Amino acid sequence: MVKGIISDPQLKKYAELAVRAGVNLQKDQLLIIHSDIQHAGFARLIQTAAYEAGASNVVIDWKDEQSSKEFYIHAADRFIDHIPDWQAARFKEWNDEGAAYIHIISDNVLEDVSAERIQRFQKASRTKLKDYYSKVRSHKVRWCLIAVPCVDWAAKVFPNLSKEEALQSLWELIVSGARADGESPIDDWREHHRAFESRKKFLNESRFEALHFTNKRGTDLVVGLAKNHLFIGGAVTDEQGIPFFPNIPTEEIFTAPHKNRVNGKLVGTKPLIYGGNIIEDFHLIFTEGRITDYYAANGQEALQHLIETDEGSHYLGEIALVSTKVPLAQANTLFYKTLFDENTACHIGIGDASPSTIIDGLHKSEHELKDAGLNSSLLSVNVTFGADDMNVVGVKEGREIPVMEGGKFNF
Amino acid sequence: MVKGIISDPQLKKYAELAVRAGVNLQKDQLLIIHSDIQHAGFARLIQTAAYEAGASNVVIDWKDEQSSKEFYIHAADRFIDHIPDWQAARFKEWNDEGAAYIHIISDNVLEDVSAERIQRFQKASRTKLKDYYSKVRSHKVRWCLIAVPCVDWAAKVFPNLSKEEALQSLWELIVSGARADGESPIDDWREHHRAFESRKKFLNESRFEALHFTNKRGTDLVVGLAKNHLFIGGAVTDEQGIPFFPNIPTEEIFTAPHKNRVNGKLVGTKPLIYGGNIIEDFHLIFTEGRITDYYAANGQEALQHLIETDEGSHYLGEIALVSTKVPLAQANTLFYKTLFDENTACHIGIGDASPSTIIDGLHKSEHELKDAGLNSSLLSVNVTFGADDMNVVGVKEGREIPVMEGGKFNF
Repeated sequence: MVKGIISDPQLKKYAELAVRAGVNLQKDQLLIIHSDIQHAGFARLIQTAAYEAGASNVVIDWKDEQSSKEFYIHAADRFIDHIPDWQAARFKEWNDEGAAYIHIISDNVLEDVSAERIQRFQKASRTKLKDYYSKVRSHKVRWCLIAVPCVDWAAKVFPNLSKEEALQSLWELIVSGARADGESPIDDWREHHRAFESRKKFLNESRFEALHFTNKRGTDLVVGLAKNHLFIGGAVTDEQGIPFFPNIPTEEIFTAPHKNRVNGKLVGTKPLIYGGNIIEDFHLIFTEGRITDYYAANGQEALQHLIETDEGSHYLGEIALVSTKVPLAQANTLFYKTLFDENTACHIGIGDASPSTIIDGLHKSEHELKDAGLNSSLLSVNVTFGADDMNVVGVKEGREIPVMEGGKFNF
Repeated sequence: MVKGIISDPQLKKYAELAVRAGVNLQKDQLLIIHSDIQHAGFARLIQTAAYEAGASNVVIDWKDEQSSKEFYIHAADRFIDHIPDWQAARFKEWNDEGAAYIHIISDNVLEDVSAERIQRFQKASRTKLKDYYSKVRSHKVRWCLIAVPCVDWAAKVFPNLSKEEALQSLWELIVSGARADGESPIDDWREHHRAFESRKKFLNESRFEALHFTNKRGTDLVVGLAKNHLFIGGAVTDEQGIPFFPNIPTEEIFTAPHKNRVNGKLVGTKPLIYGGNIIEDFHLIFTEGRITDYYAANGQEALQHLIETDEGSHYLGEIALVSTKVPLAQANTLFYKTLFDENTACHIGIGDASPSTIIDGLHKSEHELKDAGLNSSLLSVNVTFGADDMNVVGVKEGREIPVMEGGKFNF
């Protein structure tokens, strides 16, 4: 399945990237790989790369989307609403051993399955594996998502190509978009890391009050930033100070808007997919943080549903900067997958904010987070409005400091 | 992988056989399927058949021979010698829920792997999962082995065919050998079950002192039977009295010889594979149970190694009756796989005896088993000496009662 689509040596480098840059696997460390059985070829490449990096052991936790579908349809309620104890025991033992986690993700279509049963199962899973997910969120374990194509996904991205061509094209996009198409992707990621760190340093030391976005197509948006906001993106560090990249690819630098300090107009630059609907040619109007007006030439009703999910879905939770120079942006493709689309252009996140986007936010109370200006919502949806005509300035004490010009960083 | 090799409806029936006859799955019962990921197509057919039979849930426990190989080669010793606690917890929870177990087996080649590390891991596994294995052995859980072909195995059985032809031929042999090639395999197995039960009834009620085997090629062997010997084979019953077939296919009816009461000459009718060597054109001489002489035109040294494994490997642990009328016998093939070869012809088992082959044997002490005449050894190897010229009589109080004639049962 993997062979012949992209060269074996390049795929091997892509797998090594997940091990070396992704989870930054240490000598004698246990690695857990979560993979669908259809991606066995790539999972085995990661296994090999991990042993070469000195892994003490590599456990592949296999899933099978096809049989999972039957589970969601047919399993008795008690198996949908309760996860067995051994599942939690398993993650606890893995964590006690100091495991790192690589998740091979793709985008299979789970048709004919009740969304309600999937949600119930996911809720049961989050409850039972609370401790593991909390360690993931707070970076107490090192983990990494890395994507591989599948037929369904490739057909969505390249609807006019044959199955084989679509799969090949998506492989190429994924590997080049992940900066893994060069001689030494690991060296390229070291450089990528340095660029991230210097940009985050500038942005965080600037202590901007707001970012002001303008372009010729009508966007004129002032996004006030949360108190003690923190620009993050690229690598993070675990408890022991070991850096790792949770996402491959990763290009965005993002932080928390102040919920009530967003004003102006945002004009979308890419279709927005929500609940299976496509929303195109749209704009949003913000007044003191709240979306007070909106319009879509296509998908107005879907846009309304999105915004009216709850009170928090009228406000922003994230503002992200992405240069149009990055490989994924230059592909100029809609990936139908957040991990990719969020790394192609500047975007806002409507809805919930991440505590990690303010200083020491992971240790703050809900009250403190709210006080800093962080939004909360059941919803979290990215809306792209960047392109190669975007200009961004940082606002501080009445002055305007250049951040992006023509879609590129210019500081 | 499965498609096109044998018709889909027939494969579906073969999968149903494992669910209905194999583990005899009950309504609202949990089913665990152990499968290599390369057999996903067949595993999913079993899953579907199980939900159709009313399964509460079907869990597929995936293995991957290819990545297991890397584990055996590279994993740190602590992962080879210790199985995590959650593995035992998992089987305990499955058993508490009343699970049945289907194992999809095949015959992959694990080359370049240290047999010593595999053995250490298997020992650790048996130790940690002691409770599960004990429930399997004592039929406290219902389980079933069912075979599917793989390329390696097909190439061994049909060395002169192309890969595709070999695979297709092995599929056909396996499905027909399992009596699963008819309109209704489940009905055919009901009939199979009735024939088994009536033969076991006759043999067990006869209380023979010995079985006397003769044929024109030189076999003249009197196999004395153990005290309270029990002929078993076909279906067994679990704690609740629910019958199930642990093996698909299954043809042999077997019991325990008395260790010290075997006399005469046995002439082999099929090559014997041992430790990678082939032993052909051989005979064994027994005196008061012990192998006192032996000869092989090919593989004399391998035969010597086998017999001299330990003291117990000089004696018999099993005597099995298989009619030459059964489908597997008529295929006239060497399968290189005990599950198949033991169901093709009458055979002896050199080495260890099963406690289940005497009445109430699972509850007897080691001393009681020995006293009944049961042999014990590290070895357990089947040696085939049946063919269509085999005559068998049961000996009781000086009388001879017909059991088989010309390789077929004649009572």
